Amino acid sequence: MNDYSNPINRLIEELSKLPGVGRKTAQRLAFHIINMKDEDVTALSEAIKDVKNEIVRCSICCNISDSDPCAICNNSHRDNTTICVVEDPRDVAAMERIKDYNGKYHVLNGVIDPINGVGPDMINIKELLHRLANEDIEEIIMATNPTIEGEATAMYIARLIKPMGIRVTRIAHGLPVGGDIEYADDVTISKALEGRREI
Amino acid sequence: MNDYSNPINRLIEELSKLPGVGRKTAQRLAFHIINMKDEDVTALSEAIKDVKNEIVRCSICCNISDSDPCAICNNSHRDNTTICVVEDPRDVAAMERIKDYNGKYHVLNGVIDPINGVGPDMINIKELLHRLANEDIEEIIMATNPTIEGEATAMYIARLIKPMGIRVTRIAHGLPVGGDIEYADDVTISKALEGRREI
Repeated sequence: MNDYSNPINRLIEELSKLPGVGRKTAQRLAFHIINMKDEDVTALSEAIKDVKNEIVRCSICCNISDSDPCAICNNSHRDNTTICVVEDPRDVAAMERIKDYNGKYHVLNGVIDPINGVGPDMINIKELLHRLANEDIEEIIMATNPTIEGEATAMYIARLIKPMGIRVTRIAHGLPVGGDIEYADDVTISKALEGRREI
Repeated sequence: MNDYSNPINRLIEELSKLPGVGRKTAQRLAFHIINMKDEDVTALSEAIKDVKNEIVRCSICCNISDSDPCAICNNSHRDNTTICVVEDPRDVAAMERIKDYNGKYHVLNGVIDPINGVGPDMINIKELLHRLANEDIEEIIMATNPTIEGEATAMYIARLIKPMGIRVTRIAHGLPVGGDIEYADDVTISKALEGRREI
C-alpha cells in the first residue's frame, strides 16, 4: 500500500476509517483535499478538531450541544410537562425540523439490543427516571424507531414509567405520506389498518 | 439548516464540500466523528492539515511527492531513457502497483479538453518538452486514459515529439482481463480486434 508518499498514505488511512469510506473513496477524497484551497483545508481540519472539543452532552436531556444545559432545555417558552424520548441526537434534529413539537426531549443514545450486548443500563434510561422524579412531567412520548429494538425499548420504558401515573404514548405507525400500499411491507400495512381513524 | 449546534453545523458544511458527500452523508460522518476516540479525531484532523503542508510537486516529473525531486526521479536504478506520460498522480500509483515498469514518469495533471476550456498550455506539456531537450530520452509511452480527451492529448503530444526523433508509443487497448466480450462496448471490441497478435 506504499503507492503514495507518506502524508498522502496517512490521510488515506485516516479517511478510510470513516463509515462508508473504502480505500478507493478515501483516495479520491485525499486527492480532492490536496487540490483544495489552503483555507478550505484549514477550515475542514479545524472543524473536525473543534467538534470534539466544543461539543458537550446536556446534563438534562443527554442531547449533544455546545452548551450545558442545551438550548432546548434552557428554553422557557417550551412545554415543560412533555418529554419526547428519542434514540439519537439526529432524531431530535428531525423532530425539530417539523416545528410541530414544543416540548422537551430525552436522548437515550441507543436502544436496548441484547444481541449486540446493549442492556437497559447502557442507555440513558436512569437519567430519564431521574428527570421524572424531579420535574413535573405529564406525558412521555416514546419516539424510538419502529424497529424491533425500538419497540422493545419503548415497551420497557413504558412499563417502568406507567406506575408513576405519567401518561406514556407511542408515535403512530402507518404508511408514510406519499407511500404506496402496493409496495409497503406487510407489518406496515397491518399497523396502518390497526391505527385507522374515523374521518 | 440550524438543526444542530454550531460546531456540528460547521463540520457538516465543511464535509459536504467533499466530492460525493451530500448533506445526509456529511451528517452521518459528523456524528461518527463526534463518537470517535479523541486521538483518532486528532489524527484525522492533522492528516488533512499536513497533506497540504508537506506535499510538493516534483520539479522534474510534476508528480506530487514529499520530496523534490521525487523518489522515482531520484532513483538511479530506474531506466532514465523511458518516460511514461500519465494524466494524474493516481495513474503513477496504478502503474507502480504492477511492478512491470522501471522507467520514469511525467504527470500531465489533466488532459486537453476544449469543452471544459483546458488547452495544451494548461497541462504540463511544456515541462515534458523541457525534459526531452535536456535528458537523453529514447521512448515516450503515452499512458493517458482511453477516453476521447486522453486519445487526443496522446496524439497532440506524439505530433510534437516525433520530429525530435524520439520513439512514441501508446498503451494497448483491448478487452480487460477477466472481461466478457458479450458485455464489452463496440469500440473496445473493435480496438481488441485491431490490436490482435499472433499466438
